[in-house]
Amino acid sequence: MTATPEAQETAPAPGAAPSADAAVARDFHVFDTTLRDGAQREGINLTVADKLTIARHLDDFGVGFIEGGWPGANPRDTEFFARVQKEVPFRHAQLVAFGSTRRPHTKAADDAQVQALLDSGAPVITLVAKSHDRHVELALRTTLDENLAMITDTVAHLRAQGRRVFLDCEHFFDGYRENPAYAKAVVRAAHEAGADVVVLCDTNGGMLPAQVGAIVQTVLADTGARLGMHAQDDSGCAVANTLAAVDAGATHVQGTANGYGERVGNANLFPVVAALELKYGRQVLPEGALREMTRISHAIAEVVNLTPATHQPYVGVSAFAHKGGLHASAIKVDPALYQHIEPELVGNRLRMLVSDMAGRASVELKGKELGIDLSGDRELVGRVVARVKEHELKGYSYEAADASFELLLRTEAEGRAPRFFRTESWRAIVEDRPDGSHANEATVKLWAKGERLVATAEGNGPVNALDRALRVALERIHPELAGFRLTDYKVRILEGRHGTESTTRVLISTGDGVTEWSTVGVADNVIAASWQALEDAYTYGLLRAGVTPSE
Amino acid sequence: MTATPEAQETAPAPGAAPSADAAVARDFHVFDTTLRDGAQREGINLTVADKLTIARHLDDFGVGFIEGGWPGANPRDTEFFARVQKEVPFRHAQLVAFGSTRRPHTKAADDAQVQALLDSGAPVITLVAKSHDRHVELALRTTLDENLAMITDTVAHLRAQGRRVFLDCEHFFDGYRENPAYAKAVVRAAHEAGADVVVLCDTNGGMLPAQVGAIVQTVLADTGARLGMHAQDDSGCAVANTLAAVDAGATHVQGTANGYGERVGNANLFPVVAALELKYGRQVLPEGALREMTRISHAIAEVVNLTPATHQPYVGVSAFAHKGGLHASAIKVDPALYQHIEPELVGNRLRMLVSDMAGRASVELKGKELGIDLSGDRELVGRVVARVKEHELKGYSYEAADASFELLLRTEAEGRAPRFFRTESWRAIVEDRPDGSHANEATVKLWAKGERLVATAEGNGPVNALDRALRVALERIHPELAGFRLTDYKVRILEGRHGTESTTRVLISTGDGVTEWSTVGVADNVIAASWQALEDAYTYGLLRAGVTPSE
Repeated sequence: MTATPEAQETAPAPGAAPSADAAVARDFHVFDTTLRDGAQREGINLTVADKLTIARHLDDFGVGFIEGGWPGANPRDTEFFARVQKEVPFRHAQLVAFGSTRRPHTKAADDAQVQALLDSGAPVITLVAKSHDRHVELALRTTLDENLAMITDTVAHLRAQGRRVFLDCEHFFDGYRENPAYAKAVVRAAHEAGADVVVLCDTNGGMLPAQVGAIVQTVLADTGARLGMHAQDDSGCAVANTLAAVDAGATHVQGTANGYGERVGNANLFPVVAALELKYGRQVLPEGALREMTRISHAIAEVVNLTPATHQPYVGVSAFAHKGGLHASAIKVDPALYQHIEPELVGNRLRMLVSDMAGRASVELKGKELGIDLSGDRELVGRVVARVKEHELKGYSYEAADASFELLLRTEAEGRAPRFFRTESWRAIVEDRPDGSHANEATVKLWAKGERLVATAEGNGPVNALDRALRVALERIHPELAGFRLTDYKVRILEGRHGTESTTRVLISTGDGVTEWSTVGVADNVIAASWQALEDAYTYGLLRAGVTPSE
Repeated sequence: MTATPEAQETAPAPGAAPSADAAVARDFHVFDTTLRDGAQREGINLTVADKLTIARHLDDFGVGFIEGGWPGANPRDTEFFARVQKEVPFRHAQLVAFGSTRRPHTKAADDAQVQALLDSGAPVITLVAKSHDRHVELALRTTLDENLAMITDTVAHLRAQGRRVFLDCEHFFDGYRENPAYAKAVVRAAHEAGADVVVLCDTNGGMLPAQVGAIVQTVLADTGARLGMHAQDDSGCAVANTLAAVDAGATHVQGTANGYGERVGNANLFPVVAALELKYGRQVLPEGALREMTRISHAIAEVVNLTPATHQPYVGVSAFAHKGGLHASAIKVDPALYQHIEPELVGNRLRMLVSDMAGRASVELKGKELGIDLSGDRELVGRVVARVKEHELKGYSYEAADASFELLLRTEAEGRAPRFFRTESWRAIVEDRPDGSHANEATVKLWAKGERLVATAEGNGPVNALDRALRVALERIHPELAGFRLTDYKVRILEGRHGTESTTRVLISTGDGVTEWSTVGVADNVIAASWQALEDAYTYGLLRAGVTPSE
């Protein structure tokens, strides 16, 4: 922790972030709940080790608060709180424990669940409370007055124990629309009992920005409490709802990395923070942190084992990808005209997609991106454009196959294809046996450095068998191959209305542990298309490894 | 088309939508640009057949306008416009062609690109024009006055030819912030020349709702033009920006199915339309259409070969999925307290995540849909649910494979699988020869009506060869097979991070000239998965043809 519970608002503790950052964190709260609410997403199942790793990334990103879970509610969260305080020295964030107000008609001081929050050691506690009258009656099965007493008692108890308290008003907006007086009474009770921030939650996620803005403004004026916003994305407006609350005076925003969360998800913290810093001109993260956003978004996706969303605002790999000849020439003149921010500000980058709308300008830009200057050679650019168009007519697509495009470009630039081996022939056999098992066998016949290489291998599918046979044949001559791994494999049938007589396009991603590259193959059958993409993948990998083409 | 170009605003043409729907379409425009701007999404590559299928789905959904592409800009779009008017009788939508204003210092009447728009036959034309002064100078390389002249001349020319014209103001909001007078001059020029709607485009997608609302309000007051909104999602606010424009007086919204589009994507039409109908209480689609939204969203995803986004607002499979625990008992009391809308209103459903995808109710519903009444047999429904879950864990998906689901259901109901043949074994060989040609050969060994049948066939790929061998073996015994045709074939690799060692799912559509049915196969390799889907396809087809299972 950077600060003891008592001191965090006044002076930074030894080893805490510089005072400028502390002031930023004090005036405006960026509150992350990936580890608590985000983990509710269908398909996410975090181990304690996963949670520790994510906490590290979030602290690197510079959020002010990391809500770690509900200590006492399950053993995993209890263990997380114990370990994070020993194993992860936060540089920016404060650790937050989440829990509920005490049970009806008891004392907070006697409530085991409340005690578990204190036992967690977290300096900050978020309490969740009902603020919708019907939820109090139907879900909590108590009176409206007792619910207020539960809030007052629990907040006061935790404050008396030296903890900072935020109060999440569950179902606040739906409740406000049914019974605004009661919803505001909940905010007042928490505020008067000593909660630092009262967080208005759109728990069902159905609000729209104009409604959120109007309600936050009224509640702020009527209660004087410091307000926060917790939005869910069921209307597709969570980011906008969060910003609408800020416009109306909220100074605390809750969200999750990549918008993970129950149902549709929570407010995605990345576009919220980026809008605040880049469009509002309001510093809410430590200096320089925003430039780490793309890296951190992808790293967290890897930990939770979800593919990073390619089309996510700001951080998606497609977020600054431009197609089309029309724009390409103008982008060369002034890229700022065609993007809402400089991608480097969030650690992303501009990409030119080579597509069937490709023109000379996009090929030049792509060359530049790959470190090959084509600007002086109009004739070469013309040849590349012609070759791309010719290939795309056959079904190739270079948008997602940078490595194959670079090989095409080098082939045209150097007058011959870079090659490490020549294929004489190959064969793949898939056999379904009477016992229901499958045999997949492939044989390849190649030439490399004057030798004829013949190898046979089995695999769990025909492409896997071909891949293995290729490695067996070449590994002695090109030992670098041992470090390559196929990381993704995609098949697309083109002209989808013609059944199995269609053209097949295969995209393969290959990695060497440091980077990844993508290649494409197109043929009348999936095995032949895969073979082409494999050939390109290994050729490109060997070039990258610095090996000189030998054929 | 439902209406001739001249008549669409006054009286519905013979066979047009009922007048209530026509009034809805007149007062508020739901304008879909999936086929034009949506197709710009990285990774989408639509054939003409794909575009025709998507147009059918969009018309079923009841959008008022379907922008089909840029006729004349590429052969595919030109072919689409020719075919859609013959092959797809729209019930609700009007077809829109997209194109540019004429070139600087020419006449619209002499401009080949403008002529191609007329030649497309589309009753409505969207013209794109620059409205940002620096784009006029840098990208268009002409003067501000000439740009206005280009707009006036082109709009007037198309109007004189009897077409309805919408004008897209590219980069409007960025332009407005630099030079509001010029941006408004563009709106006025289009309006005065006869454009029905002037669409303000946030082309770079960087706007936030409060800014959009303020600008739309001012432009509306200052120009008197009917305004539309075209939002991109680069800030993660496209849906909210679209609604902000409506709040400010826009009566025409542009978007794409599932938010497909360049970079981060376009405004997702589904949450926009759902918010307007369910939260604004404004009917913008034909009666009942909203209930088809989930189905249509998923169907379009299948056509473009992208997995339907599970966490998409309203239509995602997780959009109304609740994790158990705290909420479960309260949801039973009153589900309305825990969801922002009734999921059935958009064709989705509440899911409790205690169990997996299949519930008893959905199996019963599905059975009913297939003409099999399961309501009386609780034990049978339980067995089907268990079998579906077991198969879905392995990677099967019955959403797009009704025929395979019906076979599973019949197998459980009848205690044995309906069969017309038994497979002893099969083998597929793909060989790449030194001359670069491929040989694809398959051998099947089957039993039917007590006979052992062995056949070998060649094809243009291994699956095609297997399909042919299967027909050769069985055609004498089951001559009905001769009428079956594979009409679509889709491959998806599951667990995409493991390269070629992944599980493969194949979906096959088969037709008999009257109807089509879809089947699924899952295996560790693409050939074995295809074989399973083929077996199901032929079994189902023979059942449909009234043949009695013989094995």
